[in-house]
Amino acid sequence: MKLASLKGGKDGGLVVVSRDLQRSVSAQAIAPTLLDALERWAECEPRLQQLYARLDAGQVEGASAFDPRQAAAPLPRAPQWCDGSAFLNHGRLMETAFNLAPIPDMETIPLIYQGGSDDFLGPTDDVSLPDEAHGIDFEGEYGVMLREVPLGASPQLARGCIALLVQINDVSLRAFGPREMKTGFGFFQAKPSSSFAPVAVTPDEIGEHWRNARVHLDLHVECNGAWFGNPNGGAMNFGFDELIAHAAATRRLSAGTIIGSGTVSNAGGQKGSACIAERRAIEAIEHGAPRTPFMHFGDRVRMEARQDGGPVFGAIDQRIVRAPTPPQA
Amino acid sequence: MKLASLKGGKDGGLVVVSRDLQRSVSAQAIAPTLLDALERWAECEPRLQQLYARLDAGQVEGASAFDPRQAAAPLPRAPQWCDGSAFLNHGRLMETAFNLAPIPDMETIPLIYQGGSDDFLGPTDDVSLPDEAHGIDFEGEYGVMLREVPLGASPQLARGCIALLVQINDVSLRAFGPREMKTGFGFFQAKPSSSFAPVAVTPDEIGEHWRNARVHLDLHVECNGAWFGNPNGGAMNFGFDELIAHAAATRRLSAGTIIGSGTVSNAGGQKGSACIAERRAIEAIEHGAPRTPFMHFGDRVRMEARQDGGPVFGAIDQRIVRAPTPPQA
Repeated sequence: MKLASLKGGKDGGLVVVSRDLQRSVSAQAIAPTLLDALERWAECEPRLQQLYARLDAGQVEGASAFDPRQAAAPLPRAPQWCDGSAFLNHGRLMETAFNLAPIPDMETIPLIYQGGSDDFLGPTDDVSLPDEAHGIDFEGEYGVMLREVPLGASPQLARGCIALLVQINDVSLRAFGPREMKTGFGFFQAKPSSSFAPVAVTPDEIGEHWRNARVHLDLHVECNGAWFGNPNGGAMNFGFDELIAHAAATRRLSAGTIIGSGTVSNAGGQKGSACIAERRAIEAIEHGAPRTPFMHFGDRVRMEARQDGGPVFGAIDQRIVRAPTPPQA
Repeated sequence: MKLASLKGGKDGGLVVVSRDLQRSVSAQAIAPTLLDALERWAECEPRLQQLYARLDAGQVEGASAFDPRQAAAPLPRAPQWCDGSAFLNHGRLMETAFNLAPIPDMETIPLIYQGGSDDFLGPTDDVSLPDEAHGIDFEGEYGVMLREVPLGASPQLARGCIALLVQINDVSLRAFGPREMKTGFGFFQAKPSSSFAPVAVTPDEIGEHWRNARVHLDLHVECNGAWFGNPNGGAMNFGFDELIAHAAATRRLSAGTIIGSGTVSNAGGQKGSACIAERRAIEAIEHGAPRTPFMHFGDRVRMEARQDGGPVFGAIDQRIVRAPTPPQA
């Protein structure tokens, strides 16, 4: 099943989208918003699946063309956004290139930070930022949207709480990261609003590519139309089940919580990178200094996972723009 | 004006509360929830103020006794929770006692971490936690609830975006803090759900005690009925205006965002502490080792700010309990 939220209102309007992403139909008779559907998932999911089956069979009246430009993030504001860093290859490259102190217990305890979730961007929305000097970067990730998870859930229980898979651009400002990490308080100014591919999908949609609580699909990343990387999500050192259990160790997680994988990253170099910072790290190791600049206003990033040549989540395809000057007090 | 959210639904039901916290009346004809009111504050605030004036004058039919036990947090789930650490006295004590590395630029750049905001507790709700060995602690804080803040807002503009003042118990698990700080990813398991006093108040309610974007009121903290501290919120090294501007430097903040002061802390020792960790730091400096234990299941914490002998936000008064064993997968 594939779901999206059309722009309008704070939480968007829920639609079911056909497997080929060509058509959609309102699901508001079942649940007005995706957040509402996730809060009542046991009740809503079978009804949404039925509508999806009928839409895909061409049996639904009132279906219309699906336009990703009309799509908000599947959850335009989510109760919670917990972003992991589950590809240790990425962390190791950063440590080596920039001579960072090793993160304690990185191999055995998942890294997760709490991100802002009040203002997510849709797949083709401009990313509005104040200053190119902040080191504007993208991070291509996969993520999961959850039903409610009880405090203390095991990884096995957590896996059953995964309702939907998503694809994310975790926009990052690299000029702030090192200082914010040194404070111990974690990323804040370094992490403006993230963007989401238009469609959230149930795990069965990707068949055998959903294994061990990982999305075993290449994530194709282009910057200004040029290949940047196509690393595979199966290489996570911790599965989403383990990330969720870590997040739920001391509190329950509300329905609609989103857990991110962190930048998809594969060892060896042939698959490129899903963020500029990692390519710069590889350049620093190979050539003594980074060569690829961070993004400028007007630059574009495109991210898409495909399966057997067909679409999965649809594409994130967006432009970086200069934010308007704030009003005076 | 004083507002509260009665339990019921994910976002509670908005009521106006009398100045003495004795009576309340539904405000749902104006806005069903406080979140909705904050999103339409320019329109809702004068109407809520009118209702408040009539309630306080005894002119409202249908008013009933206000029972804090029926109150949820003013925003049971908020779009965003950004918690500062704006009392440098607290940070300096922790550094001295536990020989921590100094935090870079702490005197000039506000410290803020992103907290979870999906599941806040009401003022008398039990705090349900899995293990006493996690170092269960309270943190008494003040906070502000915001109208939408544009990206790049100055401190002056930010001040005008403050809609309401609140009082918070930022429950903390000290066993996780040092490791999570060392990862650079910040607090996560260390910060389970926070609790809120029942009533949010407009700044004019505290008159001259609202100055320089700080709450100049003593916060009285008791643990198991015994005085723990009564530090004054006026000693913030950064005002809420500066914390907001820091938070909005690279992204806009949605209406309903809550910004916390961090543990209220005064130099000199006479005012005690608003968290156990700080008292333990003082004990470590004075006696070579901490003496006060962290909380046990069954322990209670009470926090209340008063003004000229009368109530302001009402009291947080809650018990720490053992969380139920999670269900098996």
